[in-house]
Amino acid sequence: MVNDSPEQLNTVFFALADPTRRAILERLAHGEASGTELARPFSISVPAISKHLRVLEHAELILHRKEGRTHLFRLAARPLKEAATWLEHYRQFWETQFDALDTYLHMTSEEEHDPDDPSRIS
Amino acid sequence: MVNDSPEQLNTVFFALADPTRRAILERLAHGEASGTELARPFSISVPAISKHLRVLEHAELILHRKEGRTHLFRLAARPLKEAATWLEHYRQFWETQFDALDTYLHMTSEEEHDPDDPSRIS
Repeated sequence: MVNDSPEQLNTVFFALADPTRRAILERLAHGEASGTELARPFSISVPAISKHLRVLEHAELILHRKEGRTHLFRLAARPLKEAATWLEHYRQFWETQFDALDTYLHMTSEEEHDPDDPSRIS
Repeated sequence: MVNDSPEQLNTVFFALADPTRRAILERLAHGEASGTELARPFSISVPAISKHLRVLEHAELILHRKEGRTHLFRLAARPLKEAATWLEHYRQFWETQFDALDTYLHMTSEEEHDPDDPSRIS
């Protein structure tokens, strides 16, 4: 069952509103990684990366386990699907809006290039 | 052209991380509305709703025009499509994860119900 509670969507969209957190998710889409591995590409402090990981974990976008002293993180798909499902409700809206724009541009372009158009002044 | 710059995605996802702002977008999907109409369903102050509208406008999720003294707002589709496109990259990931879960649950359920299973102790 998809749990699309408002609170869940709040925390998921908030977590996605940061480029470092989105980059962490992109890295984890390729497989499990340790905190050190995740921090490597970013020129930010370990406490800063830990804070990002806590935000992602709070949104249930990542799961973590311990192997000895190493924390390993992996991507959890469900909340991403919930966010996508919410946005999907608007697909019809944006498709209609883009279709209307295409029609308008097509009509404008035809008018501009019609040599028989009597309104053209050369 | 889809402009999926990190900054654009930051402001869009941040704007979506609030239930009042999502509700405003849901209302605007049905058509243009004034600030007063948008404020009506919410038990929050006019300055508070104005602040939400500014966040949505900053993310380019809504557009506004003036008709006399009335401000009218409408939904802009493009940033929603950009957010959906970003999430869409993960579709394959969540579908694989859900397929794996389905297979596991199916196998577990078959094992639990197999009367010939020699490991069963009755």
